[in-house]
Amino acid sequence: MLFAVTMDVHLPPDMDPDVKADILAREKAYSQQLQKSGVWPHIWRCAGRYSNLSVLDVKDNQQLHDVLSQLPLFPYMTIDVTPLATHPSDIALLEEGS
Amino acid sequence: MLFAVTMDVHLPPDMDPDVKADILAREKAYSQQLQKSGVWPHIWRCAGRYSNLSVLDVKDNQQLHDVLSQLPLFPYMTIDVTPLATHPSDIALLEEGS
Amino acid sequence: MLFAVTMDVHLPPDMDPDVKADILAREKAYSQQLQKSGVWPHIWRCAGRYSNLSVLDVKDNQQLHDVLSQLPLFPYMTIDVTPLATHPSDIALLEEGS
Amino acid sequence: MLFAVTMDVHLPPDMDPDVKADILAREKAYSQQLQKSGVWPHIWRCAGRYSNLSVLDVKDNQQLHDVLSQLPLFPYMTIDVTPLATHPSDIALLEEGS
Amino acid sequence: MLFAVTMDVHLPPDMDPDVKADILAREKAYSQQLQKSGVWPHIWRCAGRYSNLSVLDVKDNQQLHDVLSQLPLFPYMTIDVTPLATHPSDIALLEEGS
Amino acid sequence: MLFAVTMDVHLPPDMDPDVKADILAREKAYSQQLQKSGVWPHIWRCAGRYSNLSVLDVKDNQQLHDVLSQLPLFPYMTIDVTPLATHPSDIALLEEGS
Amino acid sequence: MLFAVTMDVHLPPDMDPDVKADILAREKAYSQQLQKSGVWPHIWRCAGRYSNLSVLDVKDNQQLHDVLSQLPLFPYMTIDVTPLATHPSDIALLEEGS
Amino acid sequence: MLFAVTMDVHLPPDMDPDVKADILAREKAYSQQLQKSGVWPHIWRCAGRYSNLSVLDVKDNQQLHDVLSQLPLFPYMTIDVTPLATHPSDIALLEEGS
Amino acid sequence: MLFAVTMDVHLPPDMDPDVKADILAREKAYSQQLQKSGVWPHIWRCAGRYSNLSVLDVKDNQQLHDVLSQLPLFPYMTIDVTPLATHPSDIALLEEGS
Amino acid sequence: MLFAVTMDVHLPPDMDPDVKADILAREKAYSQQLQKSGVWPHIWRCAGRYSNLSVLDVKDNQQLHDVLSQLPLFPYMTIDVTPLATHPSDIALLEEGS
Repeated sequence: MLFAVTMDVHLPPDMDPDVKADILAREKAYSQQLQKSGVWPHIWRCAGRYSNLSVLDVKDNQQLHDVLSQLPLFPYMTIDVTPLATHPSDIALLEEGS
Repeated sequence: MLFAVTMDVHLPPDMDPDVKADILAREKAYSQQLQKSGVWPHIWRCAGRYSNLSVLDVKDNQQLHDVLSQLPLFPYMTIDVTPLATHPSDIALLEEGS
Repeated sequence: MLFAVTMDVHLPPDMDPDVKADILAREKAYSQQLQKSGVWPHIWRCAGRYSNLSVLDVKDNQQLHDVLSQLPLFPYMTIDVTPLATHPSDIALLEEGS
Repeated sequence: MLFAVTMDVHLPPDMDPDVKADILAREKAYSQQLQKSGVWPHIWRCAGRYSNLSVLDVKDNQQLHDVLSQLPLFPYMTIDVTPLATHPSDIALLEEGS
Repeated sequence: MLFAVTMDVHLPPDMDPDVKADILAREKAYSQQLQKSGVWPHIWRCAGRYSNLSVLDVKDNQQLHDVLSQLPLFPYMTIDVTPLATHPSDIALLEEGS
Repeated sequence: MLFAVTMDVHLPPDMDPDVKADILAREKAYSQQLQKSGVWPHIWRCAGRYSNLSVLDVKDNQQLHDVLSQLPLFPYMTIDVTPLATHPSDIALLEEGS
Repeated sequence: MLFAVTMDVHLPPDMDPDVKADILAREKAYSQQLQKSGVWPHIWRCAGRYSNLSVLDVKDNQQLHDVLSQLPLFPYMTIDVTPLATHPSDIALLEEGS
Repeated sequence: MLFAVTMDVHLPPDMDPDVKADILAREKAYSQQLQKSGVWPHIWRCAGRYSNLSVLDVKDNQQLHDVLSQLPLFPYMTIDVTPLATHPSDIALLEEGS
Repeated sequence: MLFAVTMDVHLPPDMDPDVKADILAREKAYSQQLQKSGVWPHIWRCAGRYSNLSVLDVKDNQQLHDVLSQLPLFPYMTIDVTPLATHPSDIALLEEGS
Repeated sequence: MLFAVTMDVHLPPDMDPDVKADILAREKAYSQQLQKSGVWPHIWRCAGRYSNLSVLDVKDNQQLHDVLSQLPLFPYMTIDVTPLATHPSDIALLEEGS
């Protein structure tokens, strides 16, 4: 089940550089582990902003919340969630029907 | 080059049923042609709304505008465009670097 | 899987009374059928507005969209969807753990 | 008398961990006491956000304010309140009328 | 129990004058009946706008909705509701305590 | 001359308790003095929020500003002002005309 | 007593030209009469928009509402009102004090 | 003197095709005449929307309003105006200073 | 050439009193110098808010920016600028034409 | 490929003067290098605000993000991006067609 998720990151400009480097490294590792497992199939940078647009593939709302709330950057993020369904014009439906 | 595009459709409730059926059929055909050609790699329905979230893959801003402004439903849509770039945590970068 | 759904209804003031009566009767019947089946466990009127706050219990985002987009009033509604998860303070968790 | 209440929590990222643990423990205890007493019949996590959607059952606006303003997290919350009434399509009305 | 209610009226400029005169007369009569009964203790015009700020005194949310949804102008209004409680600085509390 | 005034209070969560107690005591005394003098005829708590809705009765805009800007909590408030006039449906007009 | 008033005009594009010419002529005459009487000391066009920023000088909120609600374009306007007071840096205060 | 101007066009979907063709032809001719005269140095399409971002070079606010309010599409546009000044990092300043 | 300028001031509540007194004194002196020179013909306090509505009379956008950006309170202000033109109903036009 | 970019700068008022001077010098040098290279063809100050409107000329979204995210002031900016295409009324098209 897919969700579009927009994550806007707001780090305090005076954040300690070591703390920042550590949290960013953990964020990257956590994201990549989820990408490899198939839970996080798409991640794009929104050009010009410290934000990403992602698509998550989870089994239910509970897993969606668990995955997002464990992001190391979660306390610094504004997150917007949109549940996605199949679009009736999607050509994948043609293939299924063939 | 990828763009996230949100399209919200606002059809007048008293639209003539034949006109509506015709425009929706042309919209679907147009979208599916672009999906097959690779220009419209993702289209999802936003659950509960007459809206879609799409990702378009175009060579430049001009093609993006040409593709969107020729949508049969374009006069009835509110469209929001976000240019996308590669996210530094994207595991596709790991594969490229290998 | 639960979703909070807010539905704001905007009927044109000059709507034909018979058309209006028919659509409202079909809306009510459709809603009550879903309430009885367990898909629509809560529906409340937002006091002072032509709006409701509902909780839907569906198996996935697809069913959520199918249920909402078939509402007879769907073309006249502005719909806002919030996916819900279990709150860690919910006393239902205490009972489960007992 | 029911109210829908959305509570968005904004804790400063540099909050002292002990202070934070204490306030969250008191918040949980306070919420669970009200759930058990019937004043707080529903609490759901909004997936992906540090927010909850709750339904409170109070005797009047005064009790609503008293309950909410005594939340240990109240100084850190943005709260939105919607008074709820019975929806005319609610099947509970059918049962009452039988 | 008090509620602050803001009502913004949007009449179509081409409304039939007789229809308009009739609905405004019924609105006035309905409002004055409620004022006399004590349910609508305050009504003020917001200067420069076709809006009013009112205070309603009802026994619960249900009565609030019933009163507002029966306004002849209800289909032409945007309504905002704020539940009110006693303010701890209100001098009425001093008198009660005396 | 009446004005509706909404005051939203934003105190820093880490405010010194003594400073806070002092400013709140001065705010209460100042408000009650104005209530007794007839300048501040109504003050209500907005249920669930650290906000009040008040009605001030002043001789002109200048007095309105002087009264509000001397509030001890003024530096911590977001204030919204609506000038009020007599509503043509107000039953007080009936009495005047009798 | 001064008020800043912003008036945004929204005329339907298909308005009958004679009706439009008549209403605009009446609006202009009404405005100029009030300017000559001193009630409407300033009127400026907001460049690039069908809007004006005005300053009205009235004796109270009631006169402000009466003047604005009698504008021939009132049913087509969105109006925003800001009550004005003397600014402590205004050099007019220096002259008064001399 | 430069102004950035964003123009969003909202044509009714059921506009008569001949009327629409005529107004668009006049809009294009008017715009191109101003571009040739140097008053409208930049016009760009905002990709995916029926909008343009333009830069106008006028002698004062009055000319800005006159130019914009005479656009054939003016009654169908929402216009946003930003006055522009020289940026202190503009390399044109280096050249001037040489 | 006239511009309407709204300036909202946001001073940190814990600002050093001497620093605050100094900046406010410099702001007042700077404003009064510009008022005397004719560049700042109107300044009004927005009643109930730490804001002013001003009208500036400058020769071009560049002077507007230079004047505003040198305000001692500029780093603490949110500024909104509206370019003004002559309104066709302004009675000053009648006098000019006589 | 052109993008309109609005950059609003929010520096903390208590920023260390040397840190501020350094970051502003680096910002200016970086911007001027990009202007000279043709990547940043337009930069204007938005009059009265600590903001600029720029046009960037990049080969794709990726370069747009790389250029913007390396701005020394990037952590202090709110950035808004609009992809631009050729406008069909642009007289440059006439010249191309000749």
